[in-house]
Amino acid sequence: MNKYVTFGEIMLRLKSPSNERLFQSPSLEATFGGGEGNVAVSLSRFGEEAHFITALPDNDLGMHCTEEIRKHGVLTDGVKYVKDSRLGIYYLETGSCQRPSKVVYDRAYSAFSETTGYDFDEVMKGATWFHISGISPAVSQIAADESLRAMKAAKAAGATVSIDLNYRKKLWKYGKDTVTVMRELTRYADVIIANEEDIQKCLGIASDSDVTSGELDVSSYEKLADEVKKQFSNVSTVAITLRESQSANHNDWSAVISGKTGFYHSKKYEIKNIVDRVGGGDSFSAGIIYGLTHYENEETALNFAVAASALKHTIPGDFNLTSLSEVESLMGGDGSGRVQR
Amino acid sequence: MNKYVTFGEIMLRLKSPSNERLFQSPSLEATFGGGEGNVAVSLSRFGEEAHFITALPDNDLGMHCTEEIRKHGVLTDGVKYVKDSRLGIYYLETGSCQRPSKVVYDRAYSAFSETTGYDFDEVMKGATWFHISGISPAVSQIAADESLRAMKAAKAAGATVSIDLNYRKKLWKYGKDTVTVMRELTRYADVIIANEEDIQKCLGIASDSDVTSGELDVSSYEKLADEVKKQFSNVSTVAITLRESQSANHNDWSAVISGKTGFYHSKKYEIKNIVDRVGGGDSFSAGIIYGLTHYENEETALNFAVAASALKHTIPGDFNLTSLSEVESLMGGDGSGRVQR
Amino acid sequence: MNKYVTFGEIMLRLKSPSNERLFQSPSLEATFGGGEGNVAVSLSRFGEEAHFITALPDNDLGMHCTEEIRKHGVLTDGVKYVKDSRLGIYYLETGSCQRPSKVVYDRAYSAFSETTGYDFDEVMKGATWFHISGISPAVSQIAADESLRAMKAAKAAGATVSIDLNYRKKLWKYGKDTVTVMRELTRYADVIIANEEDIQKCLGIASDSDVTSGELDVSSYEKLADEVKKQFSNVSTVAITLRESQSANHNDWSAVISGKTGFYHSKKYEIKNIVDRVGGGDSFSAGIIYGLTHYENEETALNFAVAASALKHTIPGDFNLTSLSEVESLMGGDGSGRVQR
Amino acid sequence: MNKYVTFGEIMLRLKSPSNERLFQSPSLEATFGGGEGNVAVSLSRFGEEAHFITALPDNDLGMHCTEEIRKHGVLTDGVKYVKDSRLGIYYLETGSCQRPSKVVYDRAYSAFSETTGYDFDEVMKGATWFHISGISPAVSQIAADESLRAMKAAKAAGATVSIDLNYRKKLWKYGKDTVTVMRELTRYADVIIANEEDIQKCLGIASDSDVTSGELDVSSYEKLADEVKKQFSNVSTVAITLRESQSANHNDWSAVISGKTGFYHSKKYEIKNIVDRVGGGDSFSAGIIYGLTHYENEETALNFAVAASALKHTIPGDFNLTSLSEVESLMGGDGSGRVQR
Amino acid sequence: MNKYVTFGEIMLRLKSPSNERLFQSPSLEATFGGGEGNVAVSLSRFGEEAHFITALPDNDLGMHCTEEIRKHGVLTDGVKYVKDSRLGIYYLETGSCQRPSKVVYDRAYSAFSETTGYDFDEVMKGATWFHISGISPAVSQIAADESLRAMKAAKAAGATVSIDLNYRKKLWKYGKDTVTVMRELTRYADVIIANEEDIQKCLGIASDSDVTSGELDVSSYEKLADEVKKQFSNVSTVAITLRESQSANHNDWSAVISGKTGFYHSKKYEIKNIVDRVGGGDSFSAGIIYGLTHYENEETALNFAVAASALKHTIPGDFNLTSLSEVESLMGGDGSGRVQR
Amino acid sequence: MNKYVTFGEIMLRLKSPSNERLFQSPSLEATFGGGEGNVAVSLSRFGEEAHFITALPDNDLGMHCTEEIRKHGVLTDGVKYVKDSRLGIYYLETGSCQRPSKVVYDRAYSAFSETTGYDFDEVMKGATWFHISGISPAVSQIAADESLRAMKAAKAAGATVSIDLNYRKKLWKYGKDTVTVMRELTRYADVIIANEEDIQKCLGIASDSDVTSGELDVSSYEKLADEVKKQFSNVSTVAITLRESQSANHNDWSAVISGKTGFYHSKKYEIKNIVDRVGGGDSFSAGIIYGLTHYENEETALNFAVAASALKHTIPGDFNLTSLSEVESLMGGDGSGRVQR
Repeated sequence: MNKYVTFGEIMLRLKSPSNERLFQSPSLEATFGGGEGNVAVSLSRFGEEAHFITALPDNDLGMHCTEEIRKHGVLTDGVKYVKDSRLGIYYLETGSCQRPSKVVYDRAYSAFSETTGYDFDEVMKGATWFHISGISPAVSQIAADESLRAMKAAKAAGATVSIDLNYRKKLWKYGKDTVTVMRELTRYADVIIANEEDIQKCLGIASDSDVTSGELDVSSYEKLADEVKKQFSNVSTVAITLRESQSANHNDWSAVISGKTGFYHSKKYEIKNIVDRVGGGDSFSAGIIYGLTHYENEETALNFAVAASALKHTIPGDFNLTSLSEVESLMGGDGSGRVQR
Repeated sequence: MNKYVTFGEIMLRLKSPSNERLFQSPSLEATFGGGEGNVAVSLSRFGEEAHFITALPDNDLGMHCTEEIRKHGVLTDGVKYVKDSRLGIYYLETGSCQRPSKVVYDRAYSAFSETTGYDFDEVMKGATWFHISGISPAVSQIAADESLRAMKAAKAAGATVSIDLNYRKKLWKYGKDTVTVMRELTRYADVIIANEEDIQKCLGIASDSDVTSGELDVSSYEKLADEVKKQFSNVSTVAITLRESQSANHNDWSAVISGKTGFYHSKKYEIKNIVDRVGGGDSFSAGIIYGLTHYENEETALNFAVAASALKHTIPGDFNLTSLSEVESLMGGDGSGRVQR
Repeated sequence: MNKYVTFGEIMLRLKSPSNERLFQSPSLEATFGGGEGNVAVSLSRFGEEAHFITALPDNDLGMHCTEEIRKHGVLTDGVKYVKDSRLGIYYLETGSCQRPSKVVYDRAYSAFSETTGYDFDEVMKGATWFHISGISPAVSQIAADESLRAMKAAKAAGATVSIDLNYRKKLWKYGKDTVTVMRELTRYADVIIANEEDIQKCLGIASDSDVTSGELDVSSYEKLADEVKKQFSNVSTVAITLRESQSANHNDWSAVISGKTGFYHSKKYEIKNIVDRVGGGDSFSAGIIYGLTHYENEETALNFAVAASALKHTIPGDFNLTSLSEVESLMGGDGSGRVQR
Repeated sequence: MNKYVTFGEIMLRLKSPSNERLFQSPSLEATFGGGEGNVAVSLSRFGEEAHFITALPDNDLGMHCTEEIRKHGVLTDGVKYVKDSRLGIYYLETGSCQRPSKVVYDRAYSAFSETTGYDFDEVMKGATWFHISGISPAVSQIAADESLRAMKAAKAAGATVSIDLNYRKKLWKYGKDTVTVMRELTRYADVIIANEEDIQKCLGIASDSDVTSGELDVSSYEKLADEVKKQFSNVSTVAITLRESQSANHNDWSAVISGKTGFYHSKKYEIKNIVDRVGGGDSFSAGIIYGLTHYENEETALNFAVAASALKHTIPGDFNLTSLSEVESLMGGDGSGRVQR
Repeated sequence: MNKYVTFGEIMLRLKSPSNERLFQSPSLEATFGGGEGNVAVSLSRFGEEAHFITALPDNDLGMHCTEEIRKHGVLTDGVKYVKDSRLGIYYLETGSCQRPSKVVYDRAYSAFSETTGYDFDEVMKGATWFHISGISPAVSQIAADESLRAMKAAKAAGATVSIDLNYRKKLWKYGKDTVTVMRELTRYADVIIANEEDIQKCLGIASDSDVTSGELDVSSYEKLADEVKKQFSNVSTVAITLRESQSANHNDWSAVISGKTGFYHSKKYEIKNIVDRVGGGDSFSAGIIYGLTHYENEETALNFAVAASALKHTIPGDFNLTSLSEVESLMGGDGSGRVQR
Repeated sequence: MNKYVTFGEIMLRLKSPSNERLFQSPSLEATFGGGEGNVAVSLSRFGEEAHFITALPDNDLGMHCTEEIRKHGVLTDGVKYVKDSRLGIYYLETGSCQRPSKVVYDRAYSAFSETTGYDFDEVMKGATWFHISGISPAVSQIAADESLRAMKAAKAAGATVSIDLNYRKKLWKYGKDTVTVMRELTRYADVIIANEEDIQKCLGIASDSDVTSGELDVSSYEKLADEVKKQFSNVSTVAITLRESQSANHNDWSAVISGKTGFYHSKKYEIKNIVDRVGGGDSFSAGIIYGLTHYENEETALNFAVAASALKHTIPGDFNLTSLSEVESLMGGDGSGRVQR
């Protein structure tokens, strides 16, 4: 069993029921979620040891959030509890057809955004892998500083380090330039996970793919990955997700990886009746981490990640509540959806 | 800000949960809706002044219906409250695939069907536009008489008058011939909104389009609109909706307009995962009214209306709970359904 | 009005809400269902006299299960109540896209699996038709013995006998070989209902259709039916369902029948937004039984059955809560899903 | 097994969730209920043969109402289905403390209020008992006429006839005087069930009890019953319920009976956490009918009825979903509410 | 119709279902509420013109909060919308028996706490009455400053000014002394509403009542009110609520008023099955304001207020969704809770 | 931090919503619970190290049950997973007033009832305390044997051993005499927790208290405890709960302890609006265990236990979701139920 560590913010997720607009009914589905926490949950559910480092308010909300993480087996020894603080929130409406899902953030002044002093070295001891996303440094200067400290600690501990660039335009409001911050962080990464836009917005590296052609130009992604690796010699692997959004319900989903052994394009899934797309990228990250740790073959690792995240799209909530055997079954080709009985 | 006035019936809408048949669970979703009320809500939510004239029972149901209309900003100064009366009801099951949605009406003897004496002149003062649908005159002789009176009052007040022909075969039970009644009303309209069947059933004007061909024959709609305008010289504009119903979940949706400046065919939306199709026509009417009032270009007005109603199909309930900016965004081409965050 | 009799197990069906995994919310949808009970409910709702023979525990669960069957008009004079016993349960998660629906059985030691001594002769008196499925003999040796006894009683009473082979790999755990048991039962059947896999697993007769071609090879099903009839001279009719599972939401659905008058292939339905696929086969069986009893034309009977089961896919729960007129309407070609109002 | 017949109206019951006001949430609990239907359900659940005569609209609502009655074992051979008609509705808010529960009726023009021509003689054949309430004649002239016809048919068939006077001030709007109508009907009754107010408002016979004293004056009820029997020599038994309403949650509940063998006062129950008080009187009527048919001792019959209705107050909905053994257990003295396990 | 104006914060109220602890189910009831907003809603529902001045974030949450206020007829011309801000939240668990209800605040950094520059003079024009509570100045220095400004503007506009002292120990964290701030504000009030603890904590005036005696010592409240009036000569009226909390479900509720015409003790209500106690004080304030404006007799005004707030305890949510006639009915003595039908 | 270990069965708990009878709505609340598991959850939530030894089926139900236990911090290293087994179930209806709550067991053939071979020695290492209840040996011979083995292992490990006698008449069906089995087990206990009936049914020791007197005769409990200690010299402490069940909603709740330092009677709580009484005894056991471990004073320990279980009655579900500080606050006298804000 490997030891995985992730660091980031987890929020209260308040979603209107089914496809309703917010407050159309006086009810909100109340769960928890957030990039790196989602990754930790996935890895734990795949049977691994996963630690999640975060900051939570020292009140009932922080306690219940901890319970929810622990339910999925994630170890919470790295969590800091902050007095008189608050838990970040994101409100979510689930779109359909031409209407996009919509997120309203209420995460300013959260415990995570204002906390320093994590004992990264302690939690990182013996870690195989450390993962972070570009959301954490986007939240506040403090969070950006801690993100950098976490990555350095991970490198010092001998862990492989992955970063999901994950650009969020509604964040990055504390006055720093995204590219500057993200490029500095990326210096400490071994593995980059991103989509094309993330790479442009976070690293300032543009693709020459012709998005207007309507066809995915896979070769352009190989070039893009090469350019990233050229600029960041520390990076051995770049995994790029290729989401083709036909509508809020229907996305086609595949990915490429430029790894140590070559460049591979995964199987593509047509996901036509999406249940919940939020957390899709995180489930991919978890799949890449698990895959690269467990499979010799990088193409297999990639296909594991894409299958895992395809399944995530069918599960409500941020967390990818799927099992290793379910991912392996889909990866093995059984995507017909026949009833299992 | 323009002043819009609509007149018609609003009902209690009792829907079985999700795709259940009625009473499969002992629960009904209870909201309110009805053609012209839906239009008023749309217009109010687009930021305009909207008045809705109707009759409600002078009891708790009438009070709560008023509250719901008012919630969306619609002004209720034209509402009459009737003692010992009832609120009309429609029961709704939402179909799927080959199973159609089903409406069971319980609207006989409603306050609206038996009320006379609205002070149309008072509410119409300064109105830019008045809107009515073919449902109102279908309900009862009294409602038909009041509909005519309303249209005359609107013309007298200098308002532009639109009518959504909206043929309902389960109504029209009070002994009058649909075509006779509707043609008389149409004499007072500037703008007609309809689909092909409405025009045939309400005005007695048939299209020569070949529906069996499987392809929309747009030119036949131009001819049809021309014929309507020929028979009704008072009508300057005919907007025809083109719903291609592939299944209960999947409709293709576009429209044409034959206006003052020419004939235009809108963008077509493939709406493959319909959330709630009821109120789709009303949201189009509201879009046409808003569009023709705010855009010089009739094609733009049409595209606004089609985008607005495409969004309605993704929102539960009769009301089109969408904002001006959301319609404009879709109209501007962003229909990919990517999460907004 | 015909008298139909079915025999089999009915279970408590515990489903997680919407597309959730089990226990994602602390709530389960609690209904009842099971092959032959589903068939009886369908036949009763088509306006016929339907009797369901089963065993239930003599406790509140057995009582409430009886109430639910009776609600749909099924006569329960053939039900045995067993002291200190239990009601079988199946847990259900509804899949989506590439994630299959999943059944977890908890039906061991059920009243049905341990009960003998039904008075089949009494209930069969005057029966037109008797129906059973291959699930009953799969449950236990006792149930297999009673299944055989029931079929013999039905033949003795002069009823037409149908069997839905219905292979369930998670059952058949009591030590007997499926083919041996099922071939013996099939000696008492007039009508076989099955899919290709059922025929192979239950009767040991393989098709030579090339499933890898991606196209349905209808002629191979004719050959398969011929082979079945050759081996079972008592069988006059073989109906084979052709489910093409594109995803958990999207199945294409048709069937063939090799009857007394020839071989027919039904209309095919693309069912793209499945609401609940469980009970789909049972609704087909009920359709075949009703169809062959009411229509002279076997192709019409087949099309009735396929239309009935297409509608079942749109209705939550095991039971096909659709009416005769709705099936006839779809069978007559109205599958556009337009709102009925 | 006795054969019991009841005649009256059953309605759709639409209740706001828990203690909410109507439409506080966009949801209504949707069940069915109404005096004589509630009585039939009780009697059926006690293991007897119960027939319910009523009129329902010939639409989906009438069908589902029938299913619900049938679920509880009530025989529906006496139901008439009426085209183009409606099902009566009552809206219900559940009060608490000083806030009373509130009923809003929407039952005008219902199928029951407009239907004639029931074949009472056919259903009454062999009936032991016939029951009706004072709600039926309060609905419309037609319903009053049919009520009288039903009572005469019951007498002709040799059944014992009971009437629950059940005065409803929001009804009686069709122009007839309550006392005149009810006294005529009462001429055909053997058993009267009522509270003090019912006797005054329906029969014009006032009690001399001093309600302001705060103590129940049981002897005054004996005098009242005597006076009723004096004026109606056909009446052998008068059962009077004594509800002391402390608050919407807390009622004290007992009854007296003046029967063939004497005058008895039942045990009194303090019902301090009422779940649903509606249908409480009907459950008492069913208890009296069952009790007088099954127990020699009239005091026992009375105590059975009071225990049955005490249990009704703890069960949501109009129907008294309790079993014979549960009533007998409470009647036997076990009212401590200890968990049964 | 009088014009009433209130100023204060309204929050999102997130409550766990029924008596659950937070997150016991993944669902929260989502409504809106807050002291002065609750008062405005009450006054509007009593049929008066009510304006609510507050600050809301300029996002979907602010929009939906506005809709909810407007639904109840409150005029929102005094609302300011603030960019990049947040809506305050309070989480609520409803206790029972010995377990108290629990509030977790998440209201720091709210739009209300940081907003200045309201145009009080404009909204106050022609106002009969202005109301504020001690919660507003407890939130932040800015809110305290604006509270003072509002009270001065109200006095300038000639309105009667009331303040509900409403001490909240979890607030008052911005560094100012409660007594200092509150005494300054109280200089501008005509009417004080409070309980004994509020007077001590906000004005520094202690009662000499002996709370340990278990009996309410009404005369001590008269002395307390006299002392308040002595220290604040501007105050003509002091209304003191007397809540005797027996358990989370059972409170006894009465009040005293020391007004212009004398000192009165209201009727006392035993509220034994509380549905929702939050907002109880606000409903009392609204009752006092309405009562003193509409009744000559101060005792009647007090009894109106106590009856209104007794009813509030039976209604879920912050708002007192009761009508004038319901309050008058209870005030008139009908508190038996008998079903109204 | 102490290490506590418990051993027993945990079941799926399926409850009808609010006060409904089973299947009145097609929905069940689905949580988990069972005596010793409930105790472990309580102890963990009080901040201690708690291990729960049990057997679960090796399927999704077993997995989700584990997650739920883990959520509350309980360590599951002692759980055995059994192939092809089942999870026990109990169905629950919540009574009210005179209607008792009702449990229907479906726990035969559960994993727990058939599992042997737990590694008790391993889990017991370093344990401070071991707890078991009389439910475990009531389930099956195997479970009784394992219970004995567990108690011996606990003694061997040096743990204090407590047993909650917990007599369940619906169990004990495997042929052994309750008293014989329970007396043998009790030989290994240091602390007995029980009510009067448990002691009689499990140990064969009757009290001479006069239950018909209506008053609790505390001195008789002292004698009873003395007799138990006389017969079981190994037992140092007997805690007896005194539940006075006024109705399903209202229990009075206190306890006595006969410990090492004397005999004490706790404070008594009137619990008049019970939310969920199931698990009340387990919360008392957890309280006794925690109390005796943390307080020198046995009376304080007892009062802690009674306060903890009083709070349990206000919380839905089997688990006592209350915190140490909440128990301490109630124990300290604050039971007024005032809102905490």
